[in-house]
Amino acid sequence: AWSEKLAPRLKSQIEFLVAIDALKSVYRASHIASNERRENSAEHSWHLTMFARILAEHANEAVDIERVIFMLMVHDIVEVDAGDTPLHGQQNPEQEANEQAAATRLFGLLPDDQSLLLRQCWDEFEAAQSADARFAKALDRLQPVLLNALTEGGTWKDYEVSLDQVTSRTAQIGKGSDTLWDMANAIFNEAVDHGWLKTARPADLS
Amino acid sequence: AWSEKLAPRLKSQIEFLVAIDALKSVYRASHIASNERRENSAEHSWHLTMFARILAEHANEAVDIERVIFMLMVHDIVEVDAGDTPLHGQQNPEQEANEQAAATRLFGLLPDDQSLLLRQCWDEFEAAQSADARFAKALDRLQPVLLNALTEGGTWKDYEVSLDQVTSRTAQIGKGSDTLWDMANAIFNEAVDHGWLKTARPADLS
Ligand SMILES: [Ca+2]
Repeated sequence: AWSEKLAPRLKSQIEFLVAIDALKSVYRASHIASNERRENSAEHSWHLTMFARILAEHANEAVDIERVIFMLMVHDIVEVDAGDTPLHGQQNPEQEANEQAAATRLFGLLPDDQSLLLRQCWDEFEAAQSADARFAKALDRLQPVLLNALTEGGTWKDYEVSLDQVTSRTAQIGKGSDTLWDMANAIFNEAVDHGWLKTARPADLS
Repeated sequence: AWSEKLAPRLKSQIEFLVAIDALKSVYRASHIASNERRENSAEHSWHLTMFARILAEHANEAVDIERVIFMLMVHDIVEVDAGDTPLHGQQNPEQEANEQAAATRLFGLLPDDQSLLLRQCWDEFEAAQSADARFAKALDRLQPVLLNALTEGGTWKDYEVSLDQVTSRTAQIGKGSDTLWDMANAIFNEAVDHGWLKTARPADLS
């Protein structure tokens, strides 16, 4: 077969690019803006790269936006093996171990230098300890907030999420950008008015 | 509504990011590798950014890979309004005018400086006259070749494409990378053997 005749380095690269095609079949909890179906992790990753490019000026700290974009391109690749864990769903205690194994297998398809580069990039994103990673994480939390606002509550209604819960689970937006955190909070408040987010003390009990 | 209270610049940026969500509903002719459905232009754009990052070393000319990635993030956004034109399908004489109008509307949602930046980026990609654009175009032609190889002929069979046709329609691969063009030709030759690509002179007439 043609792939057997490739130089070993190119063969590894193509195997990786073929393997990650499967990210197009990993469905997230989020609804796309048209509300016609759930979003997959590949198109989500593209959308986030555009968020980074367009919203870079709102980062709290100086960021290298090309590094942020690279993190966002790579951040969900482990889901090819490990699947997506919805932010508002039941957390799977084995998810982190599954993601580590997925990173080893998937990035391991690449030549060593590239394997290391992508692994470091994903580790940096996950650790969220650098300015670039904080901003990347902030965008990853912000984008589903917008999709929920556009789909009459989206996953907030699906999972019966409260204002307190969403505020704590998306707090990383504020670590990346005060401006975008203000926007998210305005969206949350309006979602409460619409009944898309529950409040801890419902109006009828106050 | 929350969006009415945003600062005008942020409001424009969010409007753009919401508008381009619709790229997730623009379906291309290409099949995804699992062959379970057609590919959409948003996930295609993500996949191409990964092709750029991983295959950069195979470019014929020195390229600025971050610029290549930016072009690939942006290159299909006009399809939100203008739709996709399959490479092997009937060409629509109004497609270019439709895409120009789409670029004006969609990039025009952004603040002026960003609108200009994305417009220039898209224009450069379309013109394919710079080293970065040549490599970006090469990857945009290469990725569907791989998907067709993985899906028993994919769009080649759907559109009854011949070896001559595919060779001429994907020639931009060779302008971006001799190495990747060699790989594409090996794939084409094998596709002929499988009967996935027609030959001008079928065996039974020779
Ligand atoms: Ca296209």
